[in-house]
Amino acid sequence: MADVAFASEESLERLFRQARTHSAWLDRPVAPELLRQIYDLAKWGPTSANSSPARFVFVTTPEAKARLLPAVAPGNVEKTRTAPVNVIVAWDTLYYDELPRLFPHAPGMRDFFAGNPEMAREAALRNGSLQGGYFILAARGLGLDCGPMSGFDAAKLNAEFFPDGRWKANFLLNLGYGDPDKLMPRNPRLDFDEACRVL
Amino acid sequence: MADVAFASEESLERLFRQARTHSAWLDRPVAPELLRQIYDLAKWGPTSANSSPARFVFVTTPEAKARLLPAVAPGNVEKTRTAPVNVIVAWDTLYYDELPRLFPHAPGMRDFFAGNPEMAREAALRNGSLQGGYFILAARGLGLDCGPMSGFDAAKLNAEFFPDGRWKANFLLNLGYGDPDKLMPRNPRLDFDEACRVL
Repeated sequence: MADVAFASEESLERLFRQARTHSAWLDRPVAPELLRQIYDLAKWGPTSANSSPARFVFVTTPEAKARLLPAVAPGNVEKTRTAPVNVIVAWDTLYYDELPRLFPHAPGMRDFFAGNPEMAREAALRNGSLQGGYFILAARGLGLDCGPMSGFDAAKLNAEFFPDGRWKANFLLNLGYGDPDKLMPRNPRLDFDEACRVL
Repeated sequence: MADVAFASEESLERLFRQARTHSAWLDRPVAPELLRQIYDLAKWGPTSANSSPARFVFVTTPEAKARLLPAVAPGNVEKTRTAPVNVIVAWDTLYYDELPRLFPHAPGMRDFFAGNPEMAREAALRNGSLQGGYFILAARGLGLDCGPMSGFDAAKLNAEFFPDGRWKANFLLNLGYGDPDKLMPRNPRLDFDEACRVL
C-alpha cells in the first residue's frame, strides 16, 4: 500500500476515460526531457521476475523518421509522418542476461530462460507488452497523447533499426499532442458481463 | 487531448513510483463493486483495432480458490491462498468474432484474424497483455494492490476453468490491500540509457 491511497478522479479521467487514440497532431513539439520522464515512470511497473524485457527507441529526427516510414503500413504513414515523436516499443531477445542484476535472489532464472527459447520469447511478448501498457498510461499522465499501432512490416523495421538481431519490434507508438477536433467517434467496449466472470 | 491535461503528481506516485508488487495481504476484503470499477476503467485502454481480447475471471470464493490453487506454482501458493481475490487474466481465442461490433469501420478485420491463427494468437498475447497493464494500473488507481504472477501450470488451469478451450489464461494476478510491513526491498530497474535510444 502506497502512502497515497488512490489516484484522483481527475487523473483516472485523464488516463482512462477521456484519453483517446490520436491520429492527428497539433503543431507542438514534445520536450525531450518528457521521453526520459515517461520511461522513468513506466519502468516501475511489474514484470515477471522483474525481467523488464521492453526497450524503447524514440524516433525524433527527420533522418530517423525517413528510415521508419517505409516499414509502416500505408494506412499508418500519414499519422506517423506527422507525429512529433515515434516510439518503437521493442524487446531485447537477450533480456534474461540482466536477470542476475534485476532479480538477484533467484540466480537460476537467467539459465532457465536461456534454455527455453520459446518460453523466453512468449514471456518477452507478455511482459514487454505489459510495459507498453505502462508506457502509454505514463505518457498520458504527463500530458501527452498516444497513437499505438501494430500495422507495420516487422522484418523490414527490424532489419533497418536492429540489424544485429538482438532487439525486435513489438509495436509502434506515435507521441504528441493530439488534435481534439480530428477525433473520430469512440468505438464501443465489451461490457463487464461480456468480458468478466465472477466465481 | 483530454480536458484534464495531466495526472496529478500524487496519482503518478500511487500508480508508478510508490506502488509495489505485494505477496502478503491485510485482512481486509475487496468490495465486489471494485472489480467492476477496475474493468470499467481498464476497458478504455487502446488495443489493436479495438480488438480487446482480454477476459478476466475473478476468483472470490473458497470453492473457486480450491480449483485454482492446484495449478499455481509452489512458490505462489501461499500468496494466492491468502489474497482476497485472484484474477485469471485470460484471452478469448475467438476475440475477433467481436470485431464487426468493436471496429465497425473495417469489416474485413474479423476474417483477416480468423484466417491467420498464428498472427491472431500473437496479437491476442500482445493486446491482452496491454490490457493486463491497464488493469494493474486501474486497480492501483482505485486503492488496491496487485501481485501479478506467471508461475502456474497453464494447461492444468485451462482444463479446470476453460474446459471448452475458448478462453486461455495469460497470467494471474492477486488483488487486495498489501501489508506494507511485509514488503521486500525493491529490485532495481534498467536506466534510461540502458533501455532506451533516442534517434
